[in-house]
Amino acid sequence: MSQRERNAAILLIHCPDQPGLVAAVTQFIRAHGGNILDLDQHTDLEHGRFFMRVAWDLAGFDLPREAIGARFDEAVAARFGMRWELFFSDQKLRMAIFVSRQFHCLFDLLARYHAGEWPNVEIPLIISNHPDVTDIAKRFELACHVLPVTAQNKARQEAEQLRLLEAHGIDFIVLARYMQILSPQFVARFPNRIINIHHSFLPAFPGARPYHSAWARGVKVIGATSHYVTAELDAGPIIEQDVVRVTHKDTVADLVRKGRDLEKLVLARAVWHHLQREILVFENRTVVFA
Amino acid sequence: MSQRERNAAILLIHCPDQPGLVAAVTQFIRAHGGNILDLDQHTDLEHGRFFMRVAWDLAGFDLPREAIGARFDEAVAARFGMRWELFFSDQKLRMAIFVSRQFHCLFDLLARYHAGEWPNVEIPLIISNHPDVTDIAKRFELACHVLPVTAQNKARQEAEQLRLLEAHGIDFIVLARYMQILSPQFVARFPNRIINIHHSFLPAFPGARPYHSAWARGVKVIGATSHYVTAELDAGPIIEQDVVRVTHKDTVADLVRKGRDLEKLVLARAVWHHLQREILVFENRTVVFA
Amino acid sequence: MSQRERNAAILLIHCPDQPGLVAAVTQFIRAHGGNILDLDQHTDLEHGRFFMRVAWDLAGFDLPREAIGARFDEAVAARFGMRWELFFSDQKLRMAIFVSRQFHCLFDLLARYHAGEWPNVEIPLIISNHPDVTDIAKRFELACHVLPVTAQNKARQEAEQLRLLEAHGIDFIVLARYMQILSPQFVARFPNRIINIHHSFLPAFPGARPYHSAWARGVKVIGATSHYVTAELDAGPIIEQDVVRVTHKDTVADLVRKGRDLEKLVLARAVWHHLQREILVFENRTVVFA
Amino acid sequence: MSQRERNAAILLIHCPDQPGLVAAVTQFIRAHGGNILDLDQHTDLEHGRFFMRVAWDLAGFDLPREAIGARFDEAVAARFGMRWELFFSDQKLRMAIFVSRQFHCLFDLLARYHAGEWPNVEIPLIISNHPDVTDIAKRFELACHVLPVTAQNKARQEAEQLRLLEAHGIDFIVLARYMQILSPQFVARFPNRIINIHHSFLPAFPGARPYHSAWARGVKVIGATSHYVTAELDAGPIIEQDVVRVTHKDTVADLVRKGRDLEKLVLARAVWHHLQREILVFENRTVVFA
Repeated sequence: MSQRERNAAILLIHCPDQPGLVAAVTQFIRAHGGNILDLDQHTDLEHGRFFMRVAWDLAGFDLPREAIGARFDEAVAARFGMRWELFFSDQKLRMAIFVSRQFHCLFDLLARYHAGEWPNVEIPLIISNHPDVTDIAKRFELACHVLPVTAQNKARQEAEQLRLLEAHGIDFIVLARYMQILSPQFVARFPNRIINIHHSFLPAFPGARPYHSAWARGVKVIGATSHYVTAELDAGPIIEQDVVRVTHKDTVADLVRKGRDLEKLVLARAVWHHLQREILVFENRTVVFA
Repeated sequence: MSQRERNAAILLIHCPDQPGLVAAVTQFIRAHGGNILDLDQHTDLEHGRFFMRVAWDLAGFDLPREAIGARFDEAVAARFGMRWELFFSDQKLRMAIFVSRQFHCLFDLLARYHAGEWPNVEIPLIISNHPDVTDIAKRFELACHVLPVTAQNKARQEAEQLRLLEAHGIDFIVLARYMQILSPQFVARFPNRIINIHHSFLPAFPGARPYHSAWARGVKVIGATSHYVTAELDAGPIIEQDVVRVTHKDTVADLVRKGRDLEKLVLARAVWHHLQREILVFENRTVVFA
Repeated sequence: MSQRERNAAILLIHCPDQPGLVAAVTQFIRAHGGNILDLDQHTDLEHGRFFMRVAWDLAGFDLPREAIGARFDEAVAARFGMRWELFFSDQKLRMAIFVSRQFHCLFDLLARYHAGEWPNVEIPLIISNHPDVTDIAKRFELACHVLPVTAQNKARQEAEQLRLLEAHGIDFIVLARYMQILSPQFVARFPNRIINIHHSFLPAFPGARPYHSAWARGVKVIGATSHYVTAELDAGPIIEQDVVRVTHKDTVADLVRKGRDLEKLVLARAVWHHLQREILVFENRTVVFA
Repeated sequence: MSQRERNAAILLIHCPDQPGLVAAVTQFIRAHGGNILDLDQHTDLEHGRFFMRVAWDLAGFDLPREAIGARFDEAVAARFGMRWELFFSDQKLRMAIFVSRQFHCLFDLLARYHAGEWPNVEIPLIISNHPDVTDIAKRFELACHVLPVTAQNKARQEAEQLRLLEAHGIDFIVLARYMQILSPQFVARFPNRIINIHHSFLPAFPGARPYHSAWARGVKVIGATSHYVTAELDAGPIIEQDVVRVTHKDTVADLVRKGRDLEKLVLARAVWHHLQREILVFENRTVVFA
């Protein structure tokens, strides 16, 4: 959310498209004395689906925070069959980072966190399958757990991960180059709440070693993709993608080097949109009200 | 406007920011049976200004087209001090093209026109200060007038241009590399209705020979800027900009070659936004609801 | 080739990497009084392969054009096992365009041709499987042949195409959105001499309807790829790629619209590189000395 | 330099353009048993100037490192009036970072350093005019000096800075958002060895508060520029530039946020090129053999 949304309520809504939706929502806000700060709406004609994000100033709003949801539900949402989520802009989201042995994304996230670039997040937990992370976590004075994963202990380690996530009240997880595949059971616990960065412009080059595949295919651009994790590998709803040009001069090592910068950027933008509550997911596609 | 806006009314609105604006406009549409197809709004906090574009389906709307404006004015606009414009999506805009002796932008516009890429435009008039244009106009079977401009005859030729523009019922003008400066009096006749393409990323390199200046400065990107023409040269509100990378290998001729492709793209995008009635202008800046 | 290569000889060379290659080639040119205008070299470490493009001024060069190849072969190429091609910058390449019913790329190519943007090309032949092209060819006063293709007549029509290509002394073919698949036999006649434009960032979305697939997958960038045609569909060596950002707002029709501009650009750049003799192909990858 | 240049000598050369330059240099390398790994050359026709970068494998080269320069000078360089520099790829460059109170670029540089992304650099010295840097330097276990600068003490502090730079054997300086203007005397001590990052696409918006100016002008792209520092503010030879799109939705705070990511990238790329010894400077323009 932008600077204007300091003390704001944010509604994310989707429902079957039908007349009167915007009027109903904005009337509700108006009737209780709210001033709209941002409003975005979108209709997906293919699926006949309506999407909306609206943020309004809570100063002067005549409902207490804890009553807004129920009142909105009975006054508006139920009537139109809306699925909705309500957030408050001063409410910090608690983020866990999973990482393996490549730390460029981790470093980038922590530098932003340390600099206060993202005011509405807390990072109480870092989990890695390798001990190398310990040194970095220490430098940033962050809690970090090393849980090596093998075929044998995977179920047990995931159970421990879930325990830690719950213990720390984690809202969402960022896989900052975490080279383990999460089980469908694990993923189901955090629907649209696990953000992954994949080092290719999906759907090209899913799976392992995309830079090697990109070099072998002789592409002239390489990319990175951040997406919500679903049970199917590298097939979840895409939040953000970007690319960078390469030439015949670039070796695989050069692709890795150029790609790292792209991964950092694309992941950071996805986390930003998530933190701003700008993302809605429907039919494996995202609406990003940026 | 998108494909969905086939039989739509479009309102462009701006006014001082205040509570209740979205609710008032959407209630008006709802009350008369309109179904909103697209709605975008923006608040410029710096200037305390509210901007909105809303398009609704005219099927089922209970006001005749010619009554909508007056009814909206008395029911909503007057109360909030709104400045507004009303369009209908099936209403074609009539565009005039001014061009000198470089024809890449002209060709690009005419190819789009010929292919029916822009359904809601007509091009009844091409004006040039050089006779070279005649051959191209003939190939596209379009009317074309050659009006050479000198310091001596400029006022007279502008009068003739204005006569032609009026005779052809022109709504807006595209300067597709027209190398004459229009007088402030001429510009004042078409406020926010003359689109120019300048071959640099303004405000860098205004005026003549920007590619030579860009080469001399050793920049690593060159750009193009489309903007509405105002009395001050190359200083009007920017509609669209884009850039392309260059290297030390590129001579001025290479910059010209690469720049041409950029000019075509940037100008075409600006014309597209104008045709979709997506642009609002305030304090020399544009809001482009794309 | 750049403006400097007005009266130049151009050598494209590749061979196994070994010491002394650049020295041998440049010595040969120097010994005969040639002044090097451009020199690019590249070593593919993966394949141990050396690539080079060198252009030199023919003014003062003491070998007649027709003797250069043989002399270079005996003095240098044979010794190092070089594969090479020799071109002269003032020698025009003869290009045929194949097109179906979408004309944005055709228009773009013809506008460049008409404007003299590409000085070293001639377009004596346009072939289409649909009669719609006739009108455009006529506007540009170009020869055009309509050869409708069905499963039944395909072999016969390809034979006729080959006859026309030969009769017009065609050097290379541009598939400007030609929606027929060429037979392997046809392709084999023009190795690395057929340039296709595919409307996706390959290897994502090969085959038919890539924009529909891109929309369904919810990508945030769409792309276009120009490549030399090989027997395997959409799998030939990539010459150029580029992308443009899209959002959830974009319908399939919007992707098509944005993609068209990308296709024009990417195809035109590929043709430019081909005309400049800047491209070498090895192991299904291109070296583009741009 | 790429991975191939592990044990390589690198020559950067420029001189008046004349025949035989490439042959002379490559013959010299060949005659002493060197195998060329990379060769780039460029002729600036405007200034009649020849530029070259050549890297060759030292394995098998028959001159000792310390003799190469003198021998090259007498055998080749003197004859052609070449200005040249000789580097060895395993020789680490010693970099000092100057920073004020914005740490995103510093963090980014240190994260790369810490991760070993740039193998051929050492960072023995960080200098800041504010004490805030101390905490970060400590986290990375790097030496850091706080030298607050005022109009009164500027000369004295620059003297101290120069003393530190000399004491630490610094090869080049990176101004990672250092908000003080260096004196011409200081700059003269490190010609083409001070890299600055400016937060606009120069020459647009030089000087202070470029994001505010960009917002006020209503540009649709913002940029960042890295350049070598010269006596004239923000007017030195440009090494790298890039841009990112913005819209009317972006406040100045959003420009700052988006711009930060751009600054990091553009600065890191410039430092990379400098470390690879890929940059030549002539007439306030750079040749970047990337």
